[in-house]
Amino acid sequence: MSFNSFGHLFRVTTWGESHGPALGATVDGCPPGIALTESDIQPWLDRRKPGQNRFTTQRREDDAVEILSGIYEGRTTGTPIQLMIRNTDQRSKDYSEIARTFRPGHADITYWQKYGIRDPRGGGRSSARETAARVAAGAVARQVLATLVPGLSVTGYMVQMGARAIDRVRFDRDQIDANPFWSPDAETAALWAADLDALRKDGNSVGAVVEVVARGVPAGLGAPIYAKLDSELAAAMMSINAVKGVEIGEGFASAALTGVENADEIQMRDGAPHYLSNHAGGILGGIATGQEVVVRFAVKPTSSILTPRQSVTIDGQDTQVVTKGRHDPCVGIRAVPVGEAMMACVLLDQVLMHRAQMGETVRGTIG
Amino acid sequence: MSFNSFGHLFRVTTWGESHGPALGATVDGCPPGIALTESDIQPWLDRRKPGQNRFTTQRREDDAVEILSGIYEGRTTGTPIQLMIRNTDQRSKDYSEIARTFRPGHADITYWQKYGIRDPRGGGRSSARETAARVAAGAVARQVLATLVPGLSVTGYMVQMGARAIDRVRFDRDQIDANPFWSPDAETAALWAADLDALRKDGNSVGAVVEVVARGVPAGLGAPIYAKLDSELAAAMMSINAVKGVEIGEGFASAALTGVENADEIQMRDGAPHYLSNHAGGILGGIATGQEVVVRFAVKPTSSILTPRQSVTIDGQDTQVVTKGRHDPCVGIRAVPVGEAMMACVLLDQVLMHRAQMGETVRGTIG
Amino acid sequence: MSFNSFGHLFRVTTWGESHGPALGATVDGCPPGIALTESDIQPWLDRRKPGQNRFTTQRREDDAVEILSGIYEGRTTGTPIQLMIRNTDQRSKDYSEIARTFRPGHADITYWQKYGIRDPRGGGRSSARETAARVAAGAVARQVLATLVPGLSVTGYMVQMGARAIDRVRFDRDQIDANPFWSPDAETAALWAADLDALRKDGNSVGAVVEVVARGVPAGLGAPIYAKLDSELAAAMMSINAVKGVEIGEGFASAALTGVENADEIQMRDGAPHYLSNHAGGILGGIATGQEVVVRFAVKPTSSILTPRQSVTIDGQDTQVVTKGRHDPCVGIRAVPVGEAMMACVLLDQVLMHRAQMGETVRGTIG
Amino acid sequence: MSFNSFGHLFRVTTWGESHGPALGATVDGCPPGIALTESDIQPWLDRRKPGQNRFTTQRREDDAVEILSGIYEGRTTGTPIQLMIRNTDQRSKDYSEIARTFRPGHADITYWQKYGIRDPRGGGRSSARETAARVAAGAVARQVLATLVPGLSVTGYMVQMGARAIDRVRFDRDQIDANPFWSPDAETAALWAADLDALRKDGNSVGAVVEVVARGVPAGLGAPIYAKLDSELAAAMMSINAVKGVEIGEGFASAALTGVENADEIQMRDGAPHYLSNHAGGILGGIATGQEVVVRFAVKPTSSILTPRQSVTIDGQDTQVVTKGRHDPCVGIRAVPVGEAMMACVLLDQVLMHRAQMGETVRGTIG
Repeated sequence: MSFNSFGHLFRVTTWGESHGPALGATVDGCPPGIALTESDIQPWLDRRKPGQNRFTTQRREDDAVEILSGIYEGRTTGTPIQLMIRNTDQRSKDYSEIARTFRPGHADITYWQKYGIRDPRGGGRSSARETAARVAAGAVARQVLATLVPGLSVTGYMVQMGARAIDRVRFDRDQIDANPFWSPDAETAALWAADLDALRKDGNSVGAVVEVVARGVPAGLGAPIYAKLDSELAAAMMSINAVKGVEIGEGFASAALTGVENADEIQMRDGAPHYLSNHAGGILGGIATGQEVVVRFAVKPTSSILTPRQSVTIDGQDTQVVTKGRHDPCVGIRAVPVGEAMMACVLLDQVLMHRAQMGETVRGTIG
Repeated sequence: MSFNSFGHLFRVTTWGESHGPALGATVDGCPPGIALTESDIQPWLDRRKPGQNRFTTQRREDDAVEILSGIYEGRTTGTPIQLMIRNTDQRSKDYSEIARTFRPGHADITYWQKYGIRDPRGGGRSSARETAARVAAGAVARQVLATLVPGLSVTGYMVQMGARAIDRVRFDRDQIDANPFWSPDAETAALWAADLDALRKDGNSVGAVVEVVARGVPAGLGAPIYAKLDSELAAAMMSINAVKGVEIGEGFASAALTGVENADEIQMRDGAPHYLSNHAGGILGGIATGQEVVVRFAVKPTSSILTPRQSVTIDGQDTQVVTKGRHDPCVGIRAVPVGEAMMACVLLDQVLMHRAQMGETVRGTIG
Repeated sequence: MSFNSFGHLFRVTTWGESHGPALGATVDGCPPGIALTESDIQPWLDRRKPGQNRFTTQRREDDAVEILSGIYEGRTTGTPIQLMIRNTDQRSKDYSEIARTFRPGHADITYWQKYGIRDPRGGGRSSARETAARVAAGAVARQVLATLVPGLSVTGYMVQMGARAIDRVRFDRDQIDANPFWSPDAETAALWAADLDALRKDGNSVGAVVEVVARGVPAGLGAPIYAKLDSELAAAMMSINAVKGVEIGEGFASAALTGVENADEIQMRDGAPHYLSNHAGGILGGIATGQEVVVRFAVKPTSSILTPRQSVTIDGQDTQVVTKGRHDPCVGIRAVPVGEAMMACVLLDQVLMHRAQMGETVRGTIG
Repeated sequence: MSFNSFGHLFRVTTWGESHGPALGATVDGCPPGIALTESDIQPWLDRRKPGQNRFTTQRREDDAVEILSGIYEGRTTGTPIQLMIRNTDQRSKDYSEIARTFRPGHADITYWQKYGIRDPRGGGRSSARETAARVAAGAVARQVLATLVPGLSVTGYMVQMGARAIDRVRFDRDQIDANPFWSPDAETAALWAADLDALRKDGNSVGAVVEVVARGVPAGLGAPIYAKLDSELAAAMMSINAVKGVEIGEGFASAALTGVENADEIQMRDGAPHYLSNHAGGILGGIATGQEVVVRFAVKPTSSILTPRQSVTIDGQDTQVVTKGRHDPCVGIRAVPVGEAMMACVLLDQVLMHRAQMGETVRGTIG
């Protein structure tokens, strides 16, 4: 099935193609009485919007959100919120050249093999354009979280582009919004700018690693076994276009650690348990420890590049493919607000699930 | 909520604690008419069973499966299959010592904070014992796949233990079953044996990376957006105890690649598209390309270790915790058959979902 | 939660309020390659549209559907289909009078008690206007069924209005579209017209019973236990505004029958089993027999009436309520196309579920 | 698919056949900390148990429940509760005679047509034996409701058997447990006894109507549109074996009422809204009004009767079928505790869903 929904109780269904009249998200399960207008959503969409600097695609998309339902007098009613974004940049274009070939590394071949449909207009549902709807839904989730879990915050940033990673010694949260790469390390951001200019000139692209951190997640949030907080985050992040890996806390590095090294030791401080480290990334057994929840995901390089690559046609002919057009040389950059949105949606969903089973009483206390 | 089910149409619900009378899996949605007896399931459980060599826990668990429903005259009826495994090693033991402390890195503290329940008997639902039920369900999935997608196979193995990875030049599929580490590289297996003996002597433990490969997955299997094959695999693997990262194909390494390097070029061979590489791990846009589906996951070191670690008690006292008992020094080893089981379940679920929407006609052909 | 979705694999989520800018349905899980344009949907919406004769509300709603996604070159792509209907009759009106009172028999009081929101503008989500979205989704389901199960048809009609039922001796399928009551009995339709004129003059309203019949449902379609075809139909019909009862085949009359009377005897005819009666309404054990599937549902009288009724205000004052405005004197009439739509959606969902588990081979044959 | 689960958050999956080794229910989503032992469940199973008087089947089934998981020291842990009931009356019997014929009015023919499997041993999953698992799950739901919604009670009783209905003037709640028909009217119970003796002697059976009432359901419980309280109850009751109709409040009778008659007028009493009648059966717009929730369902006569009926064989031969064995002459009797169980499960599920979206604050107050 197409399965275009995620979330159990805070349930988001996205719809729409990159080149249709509009796309959007149907958001169901939102608590009532939450203040929400377009102006609460638009700033998050603007962060993801292309064409804001030379490092993202130069397509022009306004990404102006309209709320069609679920709001009365500026507050949520508890009924479905329909968020619609019109597609404005549907410039007429001749697709005949690419309509019968497949881009190596792109989903156009597998969509063809699954559905028997070849829609050459910008990737249809497989386009990263679908993530605009996620960001809109994530903005709703943030707004609800601000009421239900006031101290909770979600922040994403890029920690690696190509082979070059940030230096965590220079980590400065205030830098994140101050450069086009959402980099917490200004020096690395400058190097990335040079790297990416070179790659673009070569008609090439590059991958990245994004980290998303949630602070203020209450201890006890999450679930065991198949709705583990980490399992839900893994699914959410891996569902973003071009993502090929997800890790929590130490992640793959934990394979090389011993149990002695990896243990996050605990001490009482000010009458509450305090962890001396956070190898776990804030999750044990699928349930939050109360520390920062730390997720990282790897984004592969854009497959749509100007360098010719060998491929085939629908008719079974060998060919060379060059993808012209306005493509992101590093989709990892614009994946940052998308990763944040997914984190916000997953956390709100878990908040509602927790409240369903547990009510609003804190259960196991320590001390 | 507890959410102990996974899968959309081939739906597995596991139940049971490590120290209750029994545990098991309720398997719903199985097609009818598939040959299935306990003897089709038991060999897979035996692969996961502890105590088979000195590198896994010395607990004795027979893990003998009983089918309580869903089978008539040796074939599935299409109704729920109840798989029950009795717990036989419930030796009476004095838990009073550990009942009020928390192991660093273990889920006992978060379960307490969520549920307000401290069950000291072997971890309850957070115990790796729950994975026996997954392996039983996975054996059912394999049996169904053997009928529905005859050429499909699923194979798991360990590719890293601690800092030491296998050498892929020595990769030999026949070695996997020939050593206690499910290692495809016999030389590395011998080094791991020495490594692990040293760690056990030190009262320590270590992490690992497991790779699971599916061959014969038909091109077109999978789904876009939120039920992507890779998204479902990420959720499935991340839900296994102690897993902290999941990647597909190049995974995190893809961040350092350029688009030119990462493109899996295609040529026609014998009238069908043939990929010259598999950086994608067999999945594009959430849909299978027909190549090998390659998933890797990182397993953190066992948190139950003999080396004392700082922790706290329920009453809020600082303490030192030493976990005696019979624990796996590297849970990654026994995670191999579990990863295989999750892969089999996810693939069968996708086969059924694909059949629902598409029927049994192949859609988009090439050539 | 608000739970605005129905269906397992053919999944419809409706959204929108009676007086917002638009309402619609997000239709997920549709097979690809099905011909579908607005003109396939509009005729079904027109059947439900108010103001077509003096027996329905005189509100003017164009109910013009726009397809925003999921279609490429006139065919479904297998991705979500967004169906939007703009609200055109949002005449400015003074609601202040009714904003703080509750209509007896209307959901405005329970919505207030649940959500703490009093939206006086035409009932919001509780308005029968929501059913326009169902009819649009049902039109999609019909279009798919026409391809997947060519012989299948769905027909609804009114069999009772107030105390007056049709005479089945005069049942004439060709009459259904020939009178404003969807009555298969022209004589009774004429009497209903007189009845309803009198009721409207009195500022009163009346209930009805609607019957929906599906022909050509393949034997074996359906499921046991909790996804029984009759259970799904019961949920679907009971979810329609104002419906208070649902029955299959003999329904409540079966309580008074003996086992000898109620048995639908079977004989072989032309090499196939033939039932001599259809007390079962085409369903045994939740699975279709191949006969006509017959569902009836009771619609209560409209609660919005001109006759004063005792009620209370939000502030806890006793009051008298008279509901002015343009309301249907018998909502049962416009419930006919809605019941048909729900039947079509349920049947298609079951077709996809059956295909998932069974494939496209017929299993148990007789003879 | 087989879909053997119901409930969204309080989720029950039943498994097992009438003649397998055991059957049971996997209950997921139960809040933790609720006192629960086998002795809380067994009395409800005993009410449903056959062979307690001459009016139910003389099969001997102990229906002794075992809790296999989810309980620690007498309280729920919040993890899945496995409830197992062993089948004790598996007397060896020669089924060869009936193995190739179909009983008119029984699901054996549709199961065959769906699955291609003919399990003659007592009906398999289609047997009313499956309802024992529902009653066990319902007992868990009652236990949780007793904690979460202390004033809530659920009571079922028979209101009609064959053509004979109770006289509501003689309605006496204390009579319900005092006769074998769960009749609130002792006089009618005596007449039913005579009726049923005559029918049994004739090798015949008869239908019934059961009413289930919930008191103390909080105003505001429920949901709009597709998870309406009445829609969920309709699905739950219609899923019970042999049920052919479900209605809420006035139900089908509401079709004959006018809006003036059907309006449940409201007055303030003691500072709270008080309804002067309950035509609505306690539900408006899918949400509870705070009045009694009243559901009725019709149960068809048992299809397994001693009177010969015309039918066919698997091989396509005409035949006569007589069903020997120990069958209930009126399955409606034993459906009473099953209906109560379904009501309890639906209400608890709605309580959890409401708590998820709304928290534990009461929203819209009146007065």
